Amino acid sequence: MENQIFNLIREKKYTKLRSLLSEMNPADIAPIFDEIEQKELPVVFRILPKEFAAEIFVEMESDKQQLLIESFADAEIREVFEELFMDDAVDIIDEMPANVAKRILKQADAQTRKLINKLLAYPDDSAGSIMTTEYVNLKKDMTVEEAFNKIRTVGVDTELIYTCYVTDRSRRLLGLVTVKDLLLNQMDTVIADIMDENVIFSNTLDDKEQVAGQFEKYDLVALPVVDNENRLVGIITVDDAIDVIQEEATEDIEKMAAILPSDKPYFKTGVFSTFKARIPWLMLLMISATLTGAIISSFEEKLTLFPALIAFIPMLMDTAGNCGSQASVTVIRAISLGDIRFKDILRVIWKEIRVAFVCGLALVAVNALKLYVFDYLVMGSFDVGKQFLEIGIVCLTLFFTIHVAKIVGCTLPILAKKIGFDPAVMASPFITTTVDAISLSIYFSLAVLLLK
Amino acid sequence: MENQIFNLIREKKYTKLRSLLSEMNPADIAPIFDEIEQKELPVVFRILPKEFAAEIFVEMESDKQQLLIESFADAEIREVFEELFMDDAVDIIDEMPANVAKRILKQADAQTRKLINKLLAYPDDSAGSIMTTEYVNLKKDMTVEEAFNKIRTVGVDTELIYTCYVTDRSRRLLGLVTVKDLLLNQMDTVIADIMDENVIFSNTLDDKEQVAGQFEKYDLVALPVVDNENRLVGIITVDDAIDVIQEEATEDIEKMAAILPSDKPYFKTGVFSTFKARIPWLMLLMISATLTGAIISSFEEKLTLFPALIAFIPMLMDTAGNCGSQASVTVIRAISLGDIRFKDILRVIWKEIRVAFVCGLALVAVNALKLYVFDYLVMGSFDVGKQFLEIGIVCLTLFFTIHVAKIVGCTLPILAKKIGFDPAVMASPFITTTVDAISLSIYFSLAVLLLK
Repeated sequence: MENQIFNLIREKKYTKLRSLLSEMNPADIAPIFDEIEQKELPVVFRILPKEFAAEIFVEMESDKQQLLIESFADAEIREVFEELFMDDAVDIIDEMPANVAKRILKQADAQTRKLINKLLAYPDDSAGSIMTTEYVNLKKDMTVEEAFNKIRTVGVDTELIYTCYVTDRSRRLLGLVTVKDLLLNQMDTVIADIMDENVIFSNTLDDKEQVAGQFEKYDLVALPVVDNENRLVGIITVDDAIDVIQEEATEDIEKMAAILPSDKPYFKTGVFSTFKARIPWLMLLMISATLTGAIISSFEEKLTLFPALIAFIPMLMDTAGNCGSQASVTVIRAISLGDIRFKDILRVIWKEIRVAFVCGLALVAVNALKLYVFDYLVMGSFDVGKQFLEIGIVCLTLFFTIHVAKIVGCTLPILAKKIGFDPAVMASPFITTTVDAISLSIYFSLAVLLLK
Repeated sequence: MENQIFNLIREKKYTKLRSLLSEMNPADIAPIFDEIEQKELPVVFRILPKEFAAEIFVEMESDKQQLLIESFADAEIREVFEELFMDDAVDIIDEMPANVAKRILKQADAQTRKLINKLLAYPDDSAGSIMTTEYVNLKKDMTVEEAFNKIRTVGVDTELIYTCYVTDRSRRLLGLVTVKDLLLNQMDTVIADIMDENVIFSNTLDDKEQVAGQFEKYDLVALPVVDNENRLVGIITVDDAIDVIQEEATEDIEKMAAILPSDKPYFKTGVFSTFKARIPWLMLLMISATLTGAIISSFEEKLTLFPALIAFIPMLMDTAGNCGSQASVTVIRAISLGDIRFKDILRVIWKEIRVAFVCGLALVAVNALKLYVFDYLVMGSFDVGKQFLEIGIVCLTLFFTIHVAKIVGCTLPILAKKIGFDPAVMASPFITTTVDAISLSIYFSLAVLLLK
């Protein structure tokens, strides 16, 4: 399909190209348009019907959108942006360099420009930043018939017509009526009698992650947004809530891997931006490993006397790290899904202790078996008779550190959340460093105790 | 609110309780009902209007649903399940023990029972398992007026009435019409003239993750599902797609932390189930650390001669592990969001090499500075003059292993995906083990080379 389109462009067969594209979905065309050469893109764009072209435009990458806008005449810019929904228009303008944004805004009428500027001013993570201002607004003394007439008038330009919001004269939200309600009632029924007054709504400044959570909890398709005076200013549609859910999951995953979150796709982030997102935690964690280094240094003499102990350091550190990150990641995800709250902390710790106990028994048993069969019988690198104490130290350390790792791993994210930090930041790398230091201390203390 | 409800139950003030609950949303009542004592739950449940009670029932935890069903008379079971949408009913039956499921099925008429059994048979990760069978079905020779009449008749029992599907006599999908289209056209217009034939649809056996991706890509609210003969058998609604998106994100996160994915909330998973989900990777990773142990053992003599080198092992291993997991986690998420494909592998590696180069320079510089200022000047634990070579070895190893870690970290997930494995399984713990072995080999090789 992609190659066929490129061939038609090269051969300038625009009529055929247009009929081929008209059968496709804008979301499928956009990534193909992103690959078209700069000088051909505006030509191809112009052969399409305006509304269809605008739908493709919305889905394209922002650097290609910029190229297109720069090649457009003022009238074309106006035509394309008139077809867009307000939230999409604002998102696009937000990504443009100042001079391009200014040129777009110049094409809008004074009222629209004012509205766009207001929407641009909402903080990036707020409900206001993802809402659209087009919705069907009814009054409570309207009849069902009048409501249908209103929907027919504004319907074409509105993203979602199936939930209509009822407001009073100062635009305060009174209730909602769905088109389903309208269809199931007589034409002369008054809206006030059928509207649902228990409306779930959000405030323009609410956190957008929390708003997305409401879509999930209440199975919503749209959510009205009010300002601080309770006046209806817009709605959020479910497609934008889904985007927020995906973004937040990506952010959590990045934080768990000790990366500062970014909102751009992999190849859209430059080397230096990627570097800046990754270096702070790498630096901090490298420096904090000084502690582990100091613990080993203080034990240096003993280690040169019992060099067999050195070989187990990576196994002990890695197993403790893995145990800790399993616990922390499980708890972090459960916190963000709302399954774990601060009051559950003791229940969580108690569960992790029991899991650690069973995991500890299993791992120690397998480790002892491995030492006997592989290291002693097969490789002969270890003498079970003479190095009995060393085996004991390794197994005991393993057992204890698994408990410490699970407890630290499950506790830190809950505490972080309690004191207002992001639990995801407390994930594996941070816990690994903490648990490394504790497990080495246990290891060497046991060694000092038993290897007199 | 919660305590007020519990008090009203204890004082048996059911009229007041009913009016309080009727102002609330079922999704908010369900978690409170989950906490009500076993003997009081059926009583409270019975004071509510049937439809409202059923909406709460759907949102409750499955062990509480089971308790309720067991306390219900047959007639009550029938009443509650008649209020449910087909997909919710099937999900609930799927969670019940065999005898309870059988009792529920006995209350349904023969046709419904047959349909439920068919839905229960779809694989857990298929589109069929999350679809519902209630939708508005139109014929192409109907008029808009007839369509509205059809919607009014079936509308009440249908989850989503705003997208209607047009089928032929053998139920093959021909197109779709939205209520918006119906509202914007004359009453005598024929459906065939206004229906959209470019319908995005899925097959009952499609992977549900892929289906959820279509909702995201095309901004859908509903997606029709057809069987292998192209006959329309149901629709998937956006609320179920959102649940799939969240589940898949949780699964990816669990796999990245070396946990076998589970589909139950934290406290609903028993200690032994949690143990079973965590132990396989812990075991595998512990045993694979034998390799790192063997590398250290083979270098034991040299280490006892230059004991200062031991103290840097944790720092080198942790930094390499963190670098590797940053790269792998970024790439894994980009793969699941569709940003990276196999053909991009060289571009990815080239980007990671450049990031590794800049990160390497920064980390080596800070590490050298730390050694000089902290370990030499402040602590005196290191003699820069005498141990110049050791510093060189540590810094060179750091620089090289960062490159290896980033390259291994970004390559393994892409290769895993190519050969049909789950990229998420290639995440941090697996890569840590690989990178540990490589970084220790580099460290000791450099030491042997330079410390003659």
